[in-house]
Amino acid sequence: MKLSSGVEWALHCCVVLTAADRPVPAARLAELHDVSGTYLAKQLQGLSRAGLVRSVQGKSGGYVLTRAPEDITLLDIVEAVDGAQPTFLCTEIRQRGPLATPAEACTKPCPISRAMGVADRAWRAALRETTVADLARDVVADNGPTAFDGIRAWLTTPDSRN
Amino acid sequence: MKLSSGVEWALHCCVVLTAADRPVPAARLAELHDVSGTYLAKQLQGLSRAGLVRSVQGKSGGYVLTRAPEDITLLDIVEAVDGAQPTFLCTEIRQRGPLATPAEACTKPCPISRAMGVADRAWRAALRETTVADLARDVVADNGPTAFDGIRAWLTTPDSRN
Repeated sequence: MKLSSGVEWALHCCVVLTAADRPVPAARLAELHDVSGTYLAKQLQGLSRAGLVRSVQGKSGGYVLTRAPEDITLLDIVEAVDGAQPTFLCTEIRQRGPLATPAEACTKPCPISRAMGVADRAWRAALRETTVADLARDVVADNGPTAFDGIRAWLTTPDSRN
Repeated sequence: MKLSSGVEWALHCCVVLTAADRPVPAARLAELHDVSGTYLAKQLQGLSRAGLVRSVQGKSGGYVLTRAPEDITLLDIVEAVDGAQPTFLCTEIRQRGPLATPAEACTKPCPISRAMGVADRAWRAALRETTVADLARDVVADNGPTAFDGIRAWLTTPDSRN
């Protein structure tokens, strides 16, 4: 079971957007991360549909976070890009085959589905514990208080914009 | 992010094998669950490679659990079928692009990778909490003390064997 690489890209973009003091074009985010602009555009559209980023139109247009980094969790981003469907899909195997449990006897989810659901919820709860603000803080803790200065300057240098 | 359907099938097979008092052929397990024998054979091979089941050869051959159901966790089965690779793969995006962090400065995993790793470990820890014995107990709790009697009888009726 593996998350798409789009999740990694989207997480990096959200952290970078905390440093920007103006909208950042999708192409600029792709260039900064050295990733495919086309594929990144899809992830940004996912973030946008989920209401985590907003596209500002115009000459100085681009993407901005729609809310404070404290209010965007890893789960928000993972679900925006990868969808919110559970990791385990129960296909009601117990209702199949020669010894099938009758549908009317299946008044609650199958024990296997329940146990897998517990694990799914533990994963999501952990993702909900960390926000984009936490990640940005960790970047500063790892790389020093000026960690975002170069990124901010680069993102907002007009003549290097795509 | 979604687990393969093989995980669901393998979980059901392991629970069913707790009820069997002799080896159960793969075809019989496929018939019981009304699933593709070819695809189920692959999952059983995965369980076998992971040392969770063992194939007994011969006329009355088939699969048996290699250890007590108390000693087989959901995580064992999930990793046997779906692999043990982490759900989040860090491709070191921080080391790419015009503002790349030099490799020598990356002395610990990226903050994003660390946070995603915490969630991955929470998921695995929850999967490790439940054993095949717990699942079998829950099946009895849901369906009554005779829940496995019909399955055991069906699995071990020689003339209905494939």
